[in-house]
Amino acid sequence: MTAQEDTTALDKLNSALNSGAFQQVRFTLNSTLRPVEVAHLLEKSPPKERQILWNLIHPENEGKVLQYLADDIQADILSKMDADRLLAITETLDTDDVADVLQQLPERITRELLQIMDQQNRERIEEILAYPEDTAGGLMNTDTVTIRPDITVETCLRYIRRHNEIPEMTDSLFVVSRKKNSYIGTLPLTKLLVSDPEITIREIMNTDIKPIPADMPDDKVASLFEKHDLVSAPVINKSGKLLGRITIDDVVDVIREDADHSLMSMAGLDEDEDTFAPLLKTTRRRAVWLGINLLTALLASSVIGLFQDTIDKVVALAVLMPIVASMGGIAGSQTLTLMIRGQALGHVERSNARWLLNRELLVSLLNGIIWAGVVAAVSMVWFSSQTIGIVIGLAIVINLIVGALAGTLLPLVLKAWGIDPALAGSVLLTTITDVVGFFAFLGLATYFYG
Amino acid sequence: MTAQEDTTALDKLNSALNSGAFQQVRFTLNSTLRPVEVAHLLEKSPPKERQILWNLIHPENEGKVLQYLADDIQADILSKMDADRLLAITETLDTDDVADVLQQLPERITRELLQIMDQQNRERIEEILAYPEDTAGGLMNTDTVTIRPDITVETCLRYIRRHNEIPEMTDSLFVVSRKKNSYIGTLPLTKLLVSDPEITIREIMNTDIKPIPADMPDDKVASLFEKHDLVSAPVINKSGKLLGRITIDDVVDVIREDADHSLMSMAGLDEDEDTFAPLLKTTRRRAVWLGINLLTALLASSVIGLFQDTIDKVVALAVLMPIVASMGGIAGSQTLTLMIRGQALGHVERSNARWLLNRELLVSLLNGIIWAGVVAAVSMVWFSSQTIGIVIGLAIVINLIVGALAGTLLPLVLKAWGIDPALAGSVLLTTITDVVGFFAFLGLATYFYG
Repeated sequence: MTAQEDTTALDKLNSALNSGAFQQVRFTLNSTLRPVEVAHLLEKSPPKERQILWNLIHPENEGKVLQYLADDIQADILSKMDADRLLAITETLDTDDVADVLQQLPERITRELLQIMDQQNRERIEEILAYPEDTAGGLMNTDTVTIRPDITVETCLRYIRRHNEIPEMTDSLFVVSRKKNSYIGTLPLTKLLVSDPEITIREIMNTDIKPIPADMPDDKVASLFEKHDLVSAPVINKSGKLLGRITIDDVVDVIREDADHSLMSMAGLDEDEDTFAPLLKTTRRRAVWLGINLLTALLASSVIGLFQDTIDKVVALAVLMPIVASMGGIAGSQTLTLMIRGQALGHVERSNARWLLNRELLVSLLNGIIWAGVVAAVSMVWFSSQTIGIVIGLAIVINLIVGALAGTLLPLVLKAWGIDPALAGSVLLTTITDVVGFFAFLGLATYFYG
Repeated sequence: MTAQEDTTALDKLNSALNSGAFQQVRFTLNSTLRPVEVAHLLEKSPPKERQILWNLIHPENEGKVLQYLADDIQADILSKMDADRLLAITETLDTDDVADVLQQLPERITRELLQIMDQQNRERIEEILAYPEDTAGGLMNTDTVTIRPDITVETCLRYIRRHNEIPEMTDSLFVVSRKKNSYIGTLPLTKLLVSDPEITIREIMNTDIKPIPADMPDDKVASLFEKHDLVSAPVINKSGKLLGRITIDDVVDVIREDADHSLMSMAGLDEDEDTFAPLLKTTRRRAVWLGINLLTALLASSVIGLFQDTIDKVVALAVLMPIVASMGGIAGSQTLTLMIRGQALGHVERSNARWLLNRELLVSLLNGIIWAGVVAAVSMVWFSSQTIGIVIGLAIVINLIVGALAGTLLPLVLKAWGIDPALAGSVLLTTITDVVGFFAFLGLATYFYG
């Protein structure tokens, strides 16, 4: 289904909803569309429509749709259900998907749910829940197909044929020891298909790729998948026992969320943010960010306040001062964004940070000279004063260099302190370029006009 | 290899380079590391080191390393080679990878290269080059394994065993007609392995998933892969002939680049931007963005210029005016970022844009009232004047609402006009919130104090 058809589907559903044709909508949601498409429709529906659509989904489909929803929306829907309904949903899902859903619930409710589950399910889910959501253990599924190393290709093929179905995204079988289920190697299906039937698995299995420890952070898992072009990979615990596997579809979600994280954080938003979050929730979240930025703005104003006498003398300063702050902010933001992307891609580290700092400082110096010249000329003509041109030119060069310094060093320092550069970096950078910009410009003016 | 080990590798290489141990570095680059890891090392090396490292790579490895490099760096390295060297590199690569490399070269050189290739290679490459890089045709590989629908599972297994090797990322075989090589269906290897040997391929093949037309844009391809959890998918031409296949590793690159695009564009950077681009190239690119933003700043200044008399009368206005512009800019940026991400995820369209606009306007009104109150109170106390509190409070409410309007409508209008909202949106938004912010604040002040 293309995006075009998908749009049409939403339009059709909307008009059907508006005309009250609930039967028709119910049929489309449960029989025509796949769960992932229903989830996408829910994600792009405003709260009221979303609620109506959700209520039209058959109980046995709810779980499948739920697992494709963004975390924010998932948590919202789950929070409105009672324990019985939640239990019914978990019964339609695979163990690892149940664990994903449980992670969106308050701990009290999770414990309650686990208690009413049967023992075998409870134990398997508790094992997965032991790993945080953003680690290999939290990402993994438990649907591995395992074989022993000492059997032949022919035996292996016969063993597989006894399965009615092999789990989706199975590109490899995992070879494990007979005793402790320890991971030994990987056997790609493509290798199995072209090998001599008489040969043993041990002779053809792949032992190059190291298994993934369950506590590896998910961004490291993603970079392993990208580097080695993996479709699936085995996950082991500390003693080497095979716990499960990670598949590329879940890794793609990690990659998308990590990439969205920088974009959204720089604007003070959460990468899980529901585009159609309701009014009050949105207002509350945005208010916090505006408040933080207000403090920044007040600080900048208080710097200007120090120079009221100078501005009183030369009102042209008030006209020109936003230019200095803005140029520094723009130059600094470019450096900051490049650094944050560089950190996300693993390009930036101690050994090359000095080179980056030098280049950014020189870029700012060169661009500072160019644009300071232009602004100085414009200001001189505008206000028929040479002094004001000199003052604004110098201030721009200073602020561009400070912008480059802050844009390069803030991400390094914040990261070393364990603070997210994408979230805190842009606010701090604007504070610095505003304060320095106003101080340099008005300070120099006070000196020249004083 | 984890990121940790990878860092150590760069440090080791650096100290080896510094101590002149070129033999050791050469060995590491050509025998220890995989091409994708060498590419990553090159990407995170400043230009001089990058050049030295590149020169230490064996000619027969150059092509493999090259295909993993970011477009910007690839183009840079290729531009320094003569036709003979380029031809030698293309001879070590698969046809589809040659096409990728050729797309980084000026057309004149591409034509020259194609002329000195042998005819068969030329024809195959020209077929791929006919499709733009950002379409399914540009993404596809030609290494498909195809079978006929009328053979049995057993015959199929025997046919496959005759291959020495099946291409990487092969999770499915493609079923094609005997005559025109038309695509008929897909046979997952997992299905093949569990099926009755006597049954024919036609009975078990999958015809649910539609093949991808070669001219489909790459972001649509990515969303198909995400929706259907695909590992590989067939690509066909207009008449239904199977041309090749797209694999998930190439789709992951598309997803990462698309996600990076919004982040980088909002700061006026290119998503392919080389983190370690040399000084002058960087300066030139940044200068353009600073110039555009300078026009914005000058426009804002000229608005302030209109109210010089008022500022001359009440200098407190100069102190407070950046607060109004800044709050509007921050609020607008949050809306803009949410909209741009929503457009990228396919959440925003005509049918729900009105709801989004209403919510954003109400959020801004509520937050406007809250923060306008705070700022008004602070200003009244600071400058012991009730009038200035009323003026700044009103101006903030106005500018926050304008920020919400601009943040919601700009992405919709720009996209409809075919302009990239991520690139143009933030500049235009700042222009609007600066101009309106200063105009509203100083205009109201002129009215109240006039």
